[in-house]
Amino acid sequence: MKAAILGVCSSAVIVDVTHMVEKFDEREGAFLLASATPYFPIGSIHIAVVDPLVGTKRRPIILETKRGFFIGPDNGVLTLAAEAQVIVQAREITNLKLMLPHISETFHGRDIFAPAAAHLANGVLLEEFGPKIRDIVTPKFTKVTRRRNTVSGEVLHIDDFGNIITNIPSNYIARFRNGTVQVDLPIRKEQMKVLGTYADASLTEHIVLAGSHGYVEIASNQGNAAEKFHAKAGEKVTLSLI
Amino acid sequence: MKAAILGVCSSAVIVDVTHMVEKFDEREGAFLLASATPYFPIGSIHIAVVDPLVGTKRRPIILETKRGFFIGPDNGVLTLAAEAQVIVQAREITNLKLMLPHISETFHGRDIFAPAAAHLANGVLLEEFGPKIRDIVTPKFTKVTRRRNTVSGEVLHIDDFGNIITNIPSNYIARFRNGTVQVDLPIRKEQMKVLGTYADASLTEHIVLAGSHGYVEIASNQGNAAEKFHAKAGEKVTLSLI
Amino acid sequence: MKAAILGVCSSAVIVDVTHMVEKFDEREGAFLLASATPYFPIGSIHIAVVDPLVGTKRRPIILETKRGFFIGPDNGVLTLAAEAQVIVQAREITNLKLMLPHISETFHGRDIFAPAAAHLANGVLLEEFGPKIRDIVTPKFTKVTRRRNTVSGEVLHIDDFGNIITNIPSNYIARFRNGTVQVDLPIRKEQMKVLGTYADASLTEHIVLAGSHGYVEIASNQGNAAEKFHAKAGEKVTLSLI
Repeated sequence: MKAAILGVCSSAVIVDVTHMVEKFDEREGAFLLASATPYFPIGSIHIAVVDPLVGTKRRPIILETKRGFFIGPDNGVLTLAAEAQVIVQAREITNLKLMLPHISETFHGRDIFAPAAAHLANGVLLEEFGPKIRDIVTPKFTKVTRRRNTVSGEVLHIDDFGNIITNIPSNYIARFRNGTVQVDLPIRKEQMKVLGTYADASLTEHIVLAGSHGYVEIASNQGNAAEKFHAKAGEKVTLSLI
Repeated sequence: MKAAILGVCSSAVIVDVTHMVEKFDEREGAFLLASATPYFPIGSIHIAVVDPLVGTKRRPIILETKRGFFIGPDNGVLTLAAEAQVIVQAREITNLKLMLPHISETFHGRDIFAPAAAHLANGVLLEEFGPKIRDIVTPKFTKVTRRRNTVSGEVLHIDDFGNIITNIPSNYIARFRNGTVQVDLPIRKEQMKVLGTYADASLTEHIVLAGSHGYVEIASNQGNAAEKFHAKAGEKVTLSLI
Repeated sequence: MKAAILGVCSSAVIVDVTHMVEKFDEREGAFLLASATPYFPIGSIHIAVVDPLVGTKRRPIILETKRGFFIGPDNGVLTLAAEAQVIVQAREITNLKLMLPHISETFHGRDIFAPAAAHLANGVLLEEFGPKIRDIVTPKFTKVTRRRNTVSGEVLHIDDFGNIITNIPSNYIARFRNGTVQVDLPIRKEQMKVLGTYADASLTEHIVLAGSHGYVEIASNQGNAAEKFHAKAGEKVTLSLI
């Protein structure tokens, strides 16, 4: 993909965000993209490829937001990050002249998305990529419920440290700080303190905190919370202030 | 290695192709290099270091092709990719002035190959690196046999998805498309359809397809074909149209 | 972190040294940093984040050396590499204007260290980051004892090949070259030859050599020495010439 980008736009500055997304897991890809994109400069072009339906009718799309651009498959992987930046327009990528000469059926990242990003970086106008569309795929994992003393959402991601990252925005638990919550996960339930950082907890104590990505995390100080709770991405999670 | 490149040529654009080659496996390194290099711009300089004989008499070499340059050990890791671009000349790297001041016996990637690439990028002429050579190592895994309804080769690589990638060029099975083939691997034999993409198959169905790297693949839609067939790089594979 | 750097200094050239440091292991981080930094150009800015005490009182620091700059937590991770380049001054990073607007309690790499490096690359003067400090944390793993025929130190790191890398500088065993040493590790003791490179040994023979990083290694030619010796970072190791 990087070669395909540099072949079209040799001055492109390319940054790898991650290659560690669980295979076929658009949810995790969406979360990792949404965690990183707020820190990129205005005008950045983001490509995300978690693409189990490559080679089928799922559309390649390009989204313009108020802060930049998103390119990838129309399967929801772009939506969480792009909506956080407010989507201005969405287009299907159909212009064969802006793709590699030979389009494989299994690697659109290299053959469609990478050259599209490079042409966009070179100044090609959005309308040249293809027609406007209105109905991009919105994934289910963006829904969170919130009451006065209870918030519910789902597990978005287990990070490399075993921290359980939910889709609940951090500010939803600002009121709970230094309190105790009942955490309900499918396999285990436990009461935990809501603290500021890992190191405020005793070693391996479980805590709830406002994660650095902007979402509520369940963590353990130098321990692995996901293993302890047998937690997996996609599971329901509820936090109730006691 | 990147530091050693930037120390000589601070404007170099460095792209990591992969760090996931199985240790000491020149075959896999050769395949991954050959998969990526066609997409790089004309004039690119490729370094590959899969180098179990570092510190012995195996030569450090530099190859000029019609599309760019290859630098690495003379153990076959460069040959598949370089021959696909037509080799124009081959030289042994012997000029100590184009290496780091201290050459370790265990890390020629940093001490010889990286500075050579950077000097080449700076415009140093090929003849300054060392004498022409005619006998670079050609690996066995480039041989494939082809009859009307049967092709044979070997397993080059198991990718991250468990797809079994062979050394059989994709166009050798163009005629088999949408047909059924008998796939013979050492531990298991099975009949499979020859399809266009993973998503054309039912979940976990095994299929044969023209992989995005230009080689025939045996894959399973969202499943792991290599595990199912107990396939390993280097094994013989035969496909016969039924 | 890269986004945060490019947001402040869009022309920065960013090089990943490694993302493979064992979690919470400042010793391994320190070693890998010290192995790579000698090869970077003069004036390079190095960031290292192995940071189990993030969010506590441990200070963010910036070190100027005779060859460049180091930015990270004051927990010893920077010390081995920075001292090898001779530290000129050390400062605590306290200036909020040189950090991201919102400082999370769990990811100072992104919120403090990355923007500090980018501002420094832009030419911000060292005195603007914060006050001079004199007492940076010095880790214990820098101590080595040396007698005429015996050197002792500790295991710094097990590399990806299973090589056991010690904190004993390579030149301490220059006299032992081609001799035989008794190697004492906690679980196993063995006599080995001191050779120049892996390939001088028979397959899976254990040897001692001057590693490419500047430290003594215990290795096995295409085998895994660390598994064989059950060696772990932090263990004591003694080499005695026989």
